[in-house]
Amino acid sequence: MEYDGSDYHGFQIQPGTPTIQGALEVALAEITQGCDEGAPGRVVGAGRTDAGVHAVGQVIHFDSLWSRSTVELQRAVNALLPLDIAVRDLAVAPDGFHARYSASSRQYVYSVLNQEERSPLRERYSYRVSGETDIAAMNKAASYAIGTHDFAAFGQPPSGSITVRTLYRADWTREGDVVEFVVVANAYLRKMVRRLVGTLLWVGQGTMSSKEFEDILLKGDIGRSAPSVPPCGLCLTRVNY
Amino acid sequence: MEYDGSDYHGFQIQPGTPTIQGALEVALAEITQGCDEGAPGRVVGAGRTDAGVHAVGQVIHFDSLWSRSTVELQRAVNALLPLDIAVRDLAVAPDGFHARYSASSRQYVYSVLNQEERSPLRERYSYRVSGETDIAAMNKAASYAIGTHDFAAFGQPPSGSITVRTLYRADWTREGDVVEFVVVANAYLRKMVRRLVGTLLWVGQGTMSSKEFEDILLKGDIGRSAPSVPPCGLCLTRVNY
Repeated sequence: MEYDGSDYHGFQIQPGTPTIQGALEVALAEITQGCDEGAPGRVVGAGRTDAGVHAVGQVIHFDSLWSRSTVELQRAVNALLPLDIAVRDLAVAPDGFHARYSASSRQYVYSVLNQEERSPLRERYSYRVSGETDIAAMNKAASYAIGTHDFAAFGQPPSGSITVRTLYRADWTREGDVVEFVVVANAYLRKMVRRLVGTLLWVGQGTMSSKEFEDILLKGDIGRSAPSVPPCGLCLTRVNY
Repeated sequence: MEYDGSDYHGFQIQPGTPTIQGALEVALAEITQGCDEGAPGRVVGAGRTDAGVHAVGQVIHFDSLWSRSTVELQRAVNALLPLDIAVRDLAVAPDGFHARYSASSRQYVYSVLNQEERSPLRERYSYRVSGETDIAAMNKAASYAIGTHDFAAFGQPPSGSITVRTLYRADWTREGDVVEFVVVANAYLRKMVRRLVGTLLWVGQGTMSSKEFEDILLKGDIGRSAPSVPPCGLCLTRVNY
């Protein structure tokens, strides 16, 4: 799935507010009406993207008694979905496949527009930061986060559950005035990517050392990490199985 | 100026609807309140972009008695403008400068996303066209339009005025699945770029020959040119003086 999350209150369905899951379920219910034996099936997404977060590689699954081709189903769903949501590819899943539980890792990209002046056409999908950003320092700090750690400093878990996650990749690259953070992890705490980005930007701006970043991570001190940066810069780019 | 035109009814002010000019005048009136001696000044734009058309290089002028620096004025305007409109650069104009009348030419870029499936993050700023598009044929046809011609086949003039315009540049390039049309002209008829693009796409899709395109141009036959393609793909990129 690819979607522009700007006008949605996140992936997960909530009564009375526009959500990606809600829009998908409405479209699917209309299409498979009568062939799903009663109530329309639930859609399960690999990543519960927050309000305003985009996706180019979200993966979902749903059950359906659709008997025609997957090409026809994809075309029908795309014709009914709002213009800011699309199914990019659709296939019959192997037995037992579960979009969320079968996923081994998820990749997110956070885009920073590193320039002084506002740029409306680019700020829809990136977060503008002015001043210097030291990519080398940000990468040094980010490297401490790679591996299996308790990420309590960077996000809240659902009540009672553990805050240990495994990061396979976390690095920054610069291309012109666009600075991008790519992160791959088995799973994330709520707002974890955006809190990591905010704190790493502090390192890049020289207001925090990479050693202090490591200390915050090791101590699980959420009081010293940065608030989450805006959702517009975040995009779920890939889910691995 | 840079703006995302998606949510505006074009540049030119119209009572009761959101326009770029209207938003600018509201912001300027608030800032220069008291220093403009009475009514806030009018804003004059180089190009009257249509509803839904974007800009990264719109040029405007206005009169003001602002006595502090241009940097401060730009910062103040940008702080008050909606997020989808921004002043990218601001300077004191030479005496007698007029954003519209002093302009010698305007450059527009039309972006086509040449792929089968919907792509929400990219379709906000481009028009999706599936199937083959023959860039060589489109460039051959476009070359007939370069120079001074009567463009009556591709747009309507304000009543009674002439339809002769001079095109300095009109060409297509492909980069991956993005196909872009760059056009530079002294001035344009209403919807002229989007009608040219629509008709050139017919040539690229093989439903019209480049010779037929030339014939339509020479005969000024608006009944045989294509309807205008959607505004989302169009962007005013530069104004030359």
